[in-house]
Amino acid sequence: MTATATLRPREDVGLRDRLARSAAEREAGMQLRNPDFMPWLAERGVAHRFAVERIPFSALEGWSFAQDTGNLGHHSGRFFTVEGLHVVADEESGGEWQQPIIKQPEVGILGILAKEFDGVLHFLMQAKMEPGNPNLLQVSPTVQATRSNYTKVHRGADVKYIEYFTQAGRGRVMADVLQSEHGSWFHQKSNRNMLVQTDENVHVDDDFCWLTLGQIGELLRLDNVINMDARTVLACVPGVSPGSRALHSDTGLLSWFTGERSRRELRAERTPLGEVSGWQRDPWAISHDAGRYFRVVALAVQAGNREVTGWTQPLFEPVATGVTAFLTRRFGGVRHVLAHARAEGGFLDTVELGPTVQYTPENYAHLDPADRPRYLDLVLEADPARIRYEAVHSEEGGRFLNAESRYLIVDTEDIGTDVPPGYSWVTPDQLSSLARHGHYVNVQARTLLACLNTGAVPG
Amino acid sequence: MTATATLRPREDVGLRDRLARSAAEREAGMQLRNPDFMPWLAERGVAHRFAVERIPFSALEGWSFAQDTGNLGHHSGRFFTVEGLHVVADEESGGEWQQPIIKQPEVGILGILAKEFDGVLHFLMQAKMEPGNPNLLQVSPTVQATRSNYTKVHRGADVKYIEYFTQAGRGRVMADVLQSEHGSWFHQKSNRNMLVQTDENVHVDDDFCWLTLGQIGELLRLDNVINMDARTVLACVPGVSPGSRALHSDTGLLSWFTGERSRRELRAERTPLGEVSGWQRDPWAISHDAGRYFRVVALAVQAGNREVTGWTQPLFEPVATGVTAFLTRRFGGVRHVLAHARAEGGFLDTVELGPTVQYTPENYAHLDPADRPRYLDLVLEADPARIRYEAVHSEEGGRFLNAESRYLIVDTEDIGTDVPPGYSWVTPDQLSSLARHGHYVNVQARTLLACLNTGAVPG
Repeated sequence: MTATATLRPREDVGLRDRLARSAAEREAGMQLRNPDFMPWLAERGVAHRFAVERIPFSALEGWSFAQDTGNLGHHSGRFFTVEGLHVVADEESGGEWQQPIIKQPEVGILGILAKEFDGVLHFLMQAKMEPGNPNLLQVSPTVQATRSNYTKVHRGADVKYIEYFTQAGRGRVMADVLQSEHGSWFHQKSNRNMLVQTDENVHVDDDFCWLTLGQIGELLRLDNVINMDARTVLACVPGVSPGSRALHSDTGLLSWFTGERSRRELRAERTPLGEVSGWQRDPWAISHDAGRYFRVVALAVQAGNREVTGWTQPLFEPVATGVTAFLTRRFGGVRHVLAHARAEGGFLDTVELGPTVQYTPENYAHLDPADRPRYLDLVLEADPARIRYEAVHSEEGGRFLNAESRYLIVDTEDIGTDVPPGYSWVTPDQLSSLARHGHYVNVQARTLLACLNTGAVPG
Repeated sequence: MTATATLRPREDVGLRDRLARSAAEREAGMQLRNPDFMPWLAERGVAHRFAVERIPFSALEGWSFAQDTGNLGHHSGRFFTVEGLHVVADEESGGEWQQPIIKQPEVGILGILAKEFDGVLHFLMQAKMEPGNPNLLQVSPTVQATRSNYTKVHRGADVKYIEYFTQAGRGRVMADVLQSEHGSWFHQKSNRNMLVQTDENVHVDDDFCWLTLGQIGELLRLDNVINMDARTVLACVPGVSPGSRALHSDTGLLSWFTGERSRRELRAERTPLGEVSGWQRDPWAISHDAGRYFRVVALAVQAGNREVTGWTQPLFEPVATGVTAFLTRRFGGVRHVLAHARAEGGFLDTVELGPTVQYTPENYAHLDPADRPRYLDLVLEADPARIRYEAVHSEEGGRFLNAESRYLIVDTEDIGTDVPPGYSWVTPDQLSSLARHGHYVNVQARTLLACLNTGAVPG
């Protein structure tokens, strides 16, 4: 006996076409033409008072170093703590080291609301100030909320549009996946990346703007406009260029990945921040003894359009600009990118796929050229004619201060099908398939995947 | 410019058909007819001396309780340790408790070698003794090896056929995925589940036998014949009954799962075994104060066909037989099973999909009927006519002693499309799609999925 019930198609076969149609609209959306966008964004900046000032740790309000552990935390026990991490790994994964790390076990929501206007999908993007952004104001998802935000731990205003992401059935889900964040700075942090399409009438608040996927792609060609949270969500849509053939079958790719995760040895244990060796604390910063990697610093923030009107907080500040790049090549006519299975100390499960290159060159400047990261020079010395995409983006401005990377996609003819252990050629659509699931594609690779998904990279 | 290279189809579109053909061969394979199988298995048992004896902890050789932590470990630092776990969770996930737990950070390989004979896929299964199996000898994968095994920590014999799973290119990979094991007994344990097809001539050792998928399915209808390691690997093949429609789209299912993982709160910290409260240790066992759950005990093993000839080790011994069941119903003509998003203390990532019911009734006997696990009575009191599958299987006999569960698949007409939080109707093929990836489908649900994949459950 069978119960009567309405079955659905397991796959939304029209979704790729709808996304492709939105990606093709590159010059104007229902709300703004591109030339009007940057003035609109600047106006939103003017509309809100916002000032950021470096302060010593002693001027932090509500934050302190614990007597016993030296961990830096908030008296409410919420938000996040800065603790220590002790990593013991194989040589390929970096050997043994200690470092400060951010522990934030809450799962936040990064959500973009979508809606069709005249048959074209638009995405509701927000002009949002974050204290760590080099230019303060960037374009964020519709909703960017820690659990503390939307459960009101800091007693601020409601998170606008949150109901589309927390109430089942308010819209059609296009993507919903827990994705890792920076494994070098966060301990096992993941956020819920959501895209939800609604047919309801949506009141558009002053700080919000409907953009097509193509418009977002155009903005991704500019430095520091589309924030990290928006980029990672946009990486989770199905790729707009599906293909049924690749150098490796999907099962072959999964098998290579499983092999990488199995062979790499990396054990990371949290330790008290006060006992982390190789780092020193002064009144203004916690720094690496050799001045590498990052500093832990403190900021005071005055803002008008945040959920609360002012606060102080610690942030991580990298010591220099990173270089993050996919090398790319066509095989048999099909574009592939060279993925790198990266072990990072804060990953939940040892290894995720990163870009070909993801390094801060200054951290390796003291090494012999032969010991410097593989493929870094190939990117740094690339013929400009081979650079298919280049822009500077910053990482999450709520936790990281001026954490900029130069993101590139660079053509190569120097690498064939035979690649070293830890590397594999994959098609962008294969990466997109993996990004439907968590813990496969790291946050830096997701930025580059968002550039591919939105047409920011010329075909 | 494009490099010349041979591209492959991303999907092996013929694989489902080849598996279905093998599943249809239920009575005989190229090596044995079914009536000859149990005599063959018994003969393998006779061929090998094997005896198991309970011993006090003090008689363990090479194993001891650490002075400082009370953790039980091997002097080599390898194999596994028994430590403590302190779990703090929401009420739905079990509240707060402490327990002993097995920590075994190594990733082992569970691998089944496949080969076509006369156009029919056969799987090379092994007659393998494990000290914790109720009947000692069961049918295991071709290879069942911890990293200590195949890297020779215990200086035993080579692991036969391991090269098909460790040497890239020795065969065509049908599945390769890191799957979790028992989240109530293991701390974040996963094993590499592999199916590899070869075209080489394979010498068949005495303890090995080629079986079709259908023959394995017939053996799965018997109690305690196909071991857990074989069952979990067989769960990782693509389902033989694909379907393009279901109650929920695949994205909808992923979204529900992501929501479950996000909303559940479970934090588990390892603690010293000596400080675990609610448990007591005597010379022969570590037991729960109320006699529930499991005991930690020790065994001495004498064997002839193992990689080494004798050893002692600790095992976990559950206090009673479990009940593990999927409730199933057809909607719109399509079979669905009711999956339960279970939080278990040892899971790497909080929640995985388990069967509808997965409990040891004795552990709940002290509770009011209203507080007993949901759907347990529906299974225990099911009309025999609704039981589509029933057999007793034991969990991994290398770590668990007499850990038996009654596995069932039971038709229901009592549950409609509207189900409580934490439950969702899914098709078996949707479960199979998730089982291509790790940490979605727990080991108990994978046993039932293996029964579905091999035709052990009548259509």
